[in-house]
Amino acid sequence: MNRSDVIVVGAGISGLTAAWRLALAGRQVKVLEANKRVGGRTLNHSFASGEVVEVGGQWVGPTQERIHSLLSELNLSTYPQWNQGDNLTLFGGRLKPYRGTIPKFAPHVLLDVLQAHVRLDRMAREVPLSDPSLHPRAELWDSLTFAEWLRRNVRTATGRKVFELMCGAVFAASPHDLSFLHVLFYIRSGNNLDTLLGVEGGAQQDRILGGSQRICQLLAERLGDAVQTGEPIRAVRQSDSGVDLISDRGVHQAAHVIFAIPPTQLLRITQEPLLPSWRDQLLQRLPQGAVIKCMALYDKPFWRERGLSGQATSELGPVRLTFDNSVPGSPRGVLLGFIEGDEARQWNARLSGDRRTRVLECFARYFGDEARHPIDYVDKSWAEEPFARGCYAALFPPGLWSSGAARLREPYGRLHFAGTETATHWMGYFDGAVEAGERAAREVLGARDDRGEEDYVRHLGIA
Amino acid sequence: MNRSDVIVVGAGISGLTAAWRLALAGRQVKVLEANKRVGGRTLNHSFASGEVVEVGGQWVGPTQERIHSLLSELNLSTYPQWNQGDNLTLFGGRLKPYRGTIPKFAPHVLLDVLQAHVRLDRMAREVPLSDPSLHPRAELWDSLTFAEWLRRNVRTATGRKVFELMCGAVFAASPHDLSFLHVLFYIRSGNNLDTLLGVEGGAQQDRILGGSQRICQLLAERLGDAVQTGEPIRAVRQSDSGVDLISDRGVHQAAHVIFAIPPTQLLRITQEPLLPSWRDQLLQRLPQGAVIKCMALYDKPFWRERGLSGQATSELGPVRLTFDNSVPGSPRGVLLGFIEGDEARQWNARLSGDRRTRVLECFARYFGDEARHPIDYVDKSWAEEPFARGCYAALFPPGLWSSGAARLREPYGRLHFAGTETATHWMGYFDGAVEAGERAAREVLGARDDRGEEDYVRHLGIA
Repeated sequence: MNRSDVIVVGAGISGLTAAWRLALAGRQVKVLEANKRVGGRTLNHSFASGEVVEVGGQWVGPTQERIHSLLSELNLSTYPQWNQGDNLTLFGGRLKPYRGTIPKFAPHVLLDVLQAHVRLDRMAREVPLSDPSLHPRAELWDSLTFAEWLRRNVRTATGRKVFELMCGAVFAASPHDLSFLHVLFYIRSGNNLDTLLGVEGGAQQDRILGGSQRICQLLAERLGDAVQTGEPIRAVRQSDSGVDLISDRGVHQAAHVIFAIPPTQLLRITQEPLLPSWRDQLLQRLPQGAVIKCMALYDKPFWRERGLSGQATSELGPVRLTFDNSVPGSPRGVLLGFIEGDEARQWNARLSGDRRTRVLECFARYFGDEARHPIDYVDKSWAEEPFARGCYAALFPPGLWSSGAARLREPYGRLHFAGTETATHWMGYFDGAVEAGERAAREVLGARDDRGEEDYVRHLGIA
Repeated sequence: MNRSDVIVVGAGISGLTAAWRLALAGRQVKVLEANKRVGGRTLNHSFASGEVVEVGGQWVGPTQERIHSLLSELNLSTYPQWNQGDNLTLFGGRLKPYRGTIPKFAPHVLLDVLQAHVRLDRMAREVPLSDPSLHPRAELWDSLTFAEWLRRNVRTATGRKVFELMCGAVFAASPHDLSFLHVLFYIRSGNNLDTLLGVEGGAQQDRILGGSQRICQLLAERLGDAVQTGEPIRAVRQSDSGVDLISDRGVHQAAHVIFAIPPTQLLRITQEPLLPSWRDQLLQRLPQGAVIKCMALYDKPFWRERGLSGQATSELGPVRLTFDNSVPGSPRGVLLGFIEGDEARQWNARLSGDRRTRVLECFARYFGDEARHPIDYVDKSWAEEPFARGCYAALFPPGLWSSGAARLREPYGRLHFAGTETATHWMGYFDGAVEAGERAAREVLGARDDRGEEDYVRHLGIA
């Protein structure tokens, strides 16, 4: 019989971590991945000239202990995100250089941004990570969008634009997409705003040698034949004795199943019995963010010669945020730009060639005409990915935390739920994916299994 | 070959109207319904003693010209919602009788409610029905939840509770679920607040003899073998030459397909090619409302003897809104109660028996101890319905109209989209379902069909 102890659906970081922990604990595990590749929302791209860059998630940073410990386990090295030279900022029609994290705004704008920054951090510190709806002011905060909070609490137009940009960078969303309570939760989940936004000392500090998809590729290598790609699950049948997963090619049986896929993807799998209505209704309200990640390859990182870091933030789109994404060991230079939120949604309707032209115009606006002539170009709109349909992660709209979203990580019989959206620390990041995968693995190890044995005792030694 | 000119997916009012219009225009049409019954979000229930009531949508009212003209076409009669005697209101811990639509609040509360009512109507009048995002203040209004607008603009706690109750009654939602722009759109779509909320002269004015599901049953009878129930569509393959619809039992082919299902249900059907990402992302953000409709049957409508109308509004849940739902020709009485929004979501987790006890307690609170002892009881939680997963209709969260939700009614190649959520007038109501169905039928009739003929000319004579 084609039966496993545990089947993990989804071969991203969360799913493969869960599978690997379970395999280490001696469970017979299988991983079913819908795409023809592993990696989930990480994806390497090789330029024709050989440079490997990431068109999906790419950074790790301090306090992300779970992903760092996984990286060492896999012997993967990190290297610092390029962060030397002047950053650029384009607000009020003028391009200005600056050092560090704070652009040279007029004093009243600076004060405005800083007071909001401090207040966000202060409120975020109080939000309980296990369930933000337990905060005494949760109901109020969860009935506000981030856009409305900004409108009420950031007095200058430039200040509001800065936070809109920040919202795009952190959430791949526009401020009206998000519950203010969720924004506070997310800030706390990633420590504080400086950590979320920063390069050195922040969530954009380090990159992974060989590209972040290596994490999943190496985990998949260790799991060997247990990982099956190109196997989208269409239906789930759960009974007292086990779970059947139906793909286009056949039926897979398991005692337990861990779903490690974006929340909205769960809706697309027929469930028998139906998921409880409270869970289905929560999933209906958990859309993915929208981001188009764009990279141009040049003969050399020409901006460095002019003392520029490659980092730009701008009030003009479609690319409002850039980085130097050059790769160690190559003389060539890579500029990386993001299109986020509503702007990404609008650009999703356009052709890729059209996008390329506009993206290069943005690069040229920040780094000069040389940027118009790359030797290669790639972009990826994650809303177009068939089994993600958006990135970086799910967006929590007003009211969601208040109607029990913390329960999404509860098992349902033999079904368990991982994925970075079910994490408490670093939700939306690699680290959250690892947390969620390890938590789901622990649940399965602690569960009464189909052989009637109770092994609540045996847990992995993971904090 | 098993090929039709047009296949309609979904045998609710919208889908069957589309199919019937197309059949009248001479098209070979097929209707595929996932449930084993037609009716969509209408559903009759027969008590053991024979009375037929509706556990789904039930009312029609003035200005709903499309549904009224369909009712006459089907020779269905309407009768007035029972509306004689005193209404009851329970706010501030006291149960008070009143006549008409406005409870006897303290003058300052009354003034507070009226000023908000007038302002909502005034703002709503300006919202363009074809696309609310075209209003000059759309961005602002779409970044606010209805909850936040109420907090800022209704000064008394009782006033806010009245509007929360109104929000439940009209949307089956809590105020934090909804974009304020959508609330304004919806008010205009149903004329004004008085029309949305009223019995005489309003959207709750009339009932349909034999129960509202008769609409679909009669349309299905006329369509005969063209309607196939118990046929959930799992996948769609669209090509230049036509569309394949794959169910559990086989493949259906058509030149055009009309989806007349709730927006969130579209996500659950595998699409090839993928739906454009802008559309998929919009669908991810269109959850269904949550409502549990509860009815108790009594020997007689005992409240009438005490001069009560059977209508109660209350600050105490779970049932905050009731009606006399007795049926003509029967001496027995029926009380109808609604549980809405977050409260419905919470109660969805509980067992039906538990619900019954609490619902009857609510009825007794309003109408006396006699209400504790019905001869029969029925309730229906629409979030539990496998192919609706919520009612009455989709909830538009902040930002959705701004990111192009008006485009949801655009065809995608040979796929067309009906359902009350794609209507401009009376969205969320039977009338909107008819509008959407007729519009989709016109699209198909106007489309270049697979036989290479152009018949943009031939349209149905529907306004």
